[in-house]
Formats: sequence, structure tokens, C-alpha cells
Amino acid sequence: MEQRISLVTLGVTDVARAKAFYEQLGWRGQEVEETVFFQAGGLALVLWSRDKLAADAGISDPGTGGFGGMTLAQNVRSRSEVDELMAAATNAGAEVTQPARETFYGGYAGCFADPDGHVWEIAWNPGFPLGPDGALTVPDFNAAA
Amino acid sequence: MEQRISLVTLGVTDVARAKAFYEQLGWRGQEVEETVFFQAGGLALVLWSRDKLAADAGISDPGTGGFGGMTLAQNVRSRSEVDELMAAATNAGAEVTQPARETFYGGYAGCFADPDGHVWEIAWNPGFPLGPDGALTVPDFNAAA
Repeated sequence: MEQRISLVTLGVTDVARAKAFYEQLGWRGQEVEETVFFQAGGLALVLWSRDKLAADAGISDPGTGGFGGMTLAQNVRSRSEVDELMAAATNAGAEVTQPARETFYGGYAGCFADPDGHVWEIAWNPGFPLGPDGALTVPDFNAAA
Repeated sequence: MEQRISLVTLGVTDVARAKAFYEQLGWRGQEVEETVFFQAGGLALVLWSRDKLAADAGISDPGTGGFGGMTLAQNVRSRSEVDELMAAATNAGAEVTQPARETFYGGYAGCFADPDGHVWEIAWNPGFPLGPDGALTVPDFNAAA
């Protein structure tokens, strides 16, 4: 298996509502057959009916909300950008689940849940370099130790 | 908000078990403070304690398994690669939730759940081009129509 992810799909109860939320945050994508595709670096973030997603995956959906033990994060370039993005998400209707705060690794981060309960962490982590296009590189922890 | 994902974090009940599963599939990463980081293109796939992940995000975990409405996919370059990867995942201990089959969009795909119930779709989709490094590009659906 190659070490990469092609799609991250968010199951949603209302595609139009979810699309509006991400668009308010500045995302731009394409909708086709009630599915929204946002290009995000070398992968796509996809919004699709949660019912269809579960059926397609061949699993039963406990229907207990957005947390199944998987979260997303976006690392940003400064502390102030964390605050700005958390405010923008709140304005777009997100629920702040963890207000931005200092982290144990010397960074600064907060978390919000989108309208379907999917959790995003917004983090400034000086130990994880970001490229000009935002690509993240995992540092060499042995070299840093 | 920039249109990108920096981390996808999988909450797991046993980091060593989850790490062994992904390593058997060929992933190589770094473990630091009971957290495993796999570089995956311009982002990192992270394995971390589900309890810590929920606490860090400031949410309560319904604890109902791996499906919270978010799934991952890896697109591959051929039908046969789908079969090979589904077989490799099965050998590594994954549960096949959807055997590989023809899809409505003219591709071929199957799904498995990792030991913590996180769902991966393995898909061959001739309509979504992959670069030499596996980066996926969302096609222009208007141009294709």
C-alpha cells in the first residue's frame, strides 16, 4: 500500500448546508450528483450523504454524531492565524469544542466541530514545518532529540 | 481558511496494534510519545489514543466504534491493484466491509475497516487522474459533461 490518502470523505446530513459552511470559510469546489469535491493539495475533501457513505462502505451507522475517532487538522503559520481561523469558523456556524490554548508541545491550537460534528483542529506548531503551498513535513524526531 | 489538510488523526485503542497493522501494509513512520506519524504526501496520518484525541478536542466520545461519518480512500492505478490491496489488508487483519465490485462511476472499489473500525475505500477510478507521486486531481466536471 502506498503511503498516501486520496480522499477524505465527510458524511453529512445536508450537503447544501455543509457546502455552505465550507464555502463561507473560503473553500471552493465542484458539486456533481449531490457530492462536493474540494481539491486540497494532493487529495480531495469530499462532502457526501452520510447514509450513502455508510451504505457504500457496507457498514451500519450507529448515528451517534460526528466523532468516530477520526479528526482533521490544519496547521497554520502563526498563533494569530489560529485565532483568526477559529473566529471565522465560529462565524460560519461551527461549534468551538476546544478554545485555542497553549499546547504541551509548545504550540497553540483550538478545535471546532463543523455542522455535522466533524472535528477540525487548527494548530500553530513550530516543530512541524509547512511548505510554501502549506504541505506539512513530519520532522525527524530522532535528529531533534 | 486555506484549502488543505495537515493531519488526519486516527484515534485507536492500542497504538502498538494499530502501528503494526499499518506497518504490515507497508507504511513506515515515527513514534514519539505514544503517537505515530506517517508522512503521506503533504500531510501526516497520525495514530493516537482515542481517549486522548477526544479529550484534546474537548468532546465526549460516544464510544460506538469507528464510524463517525468520516472515511478515507486511496485511489490506485488499476483494477488488479484494488484486489491486491484488499487481500493485503485482509492478511493484515482488516475486516472487509465491502468486497471489491464495479462502481456506478465506471470504476472498481472495495472497503475495509482497520482494527479500530476506521474505514478505507480502495478504488480504481479512471475519471480521477493520479500523478506520478499518487497526488489526486479532481477533474473538471463541467468540461467532462
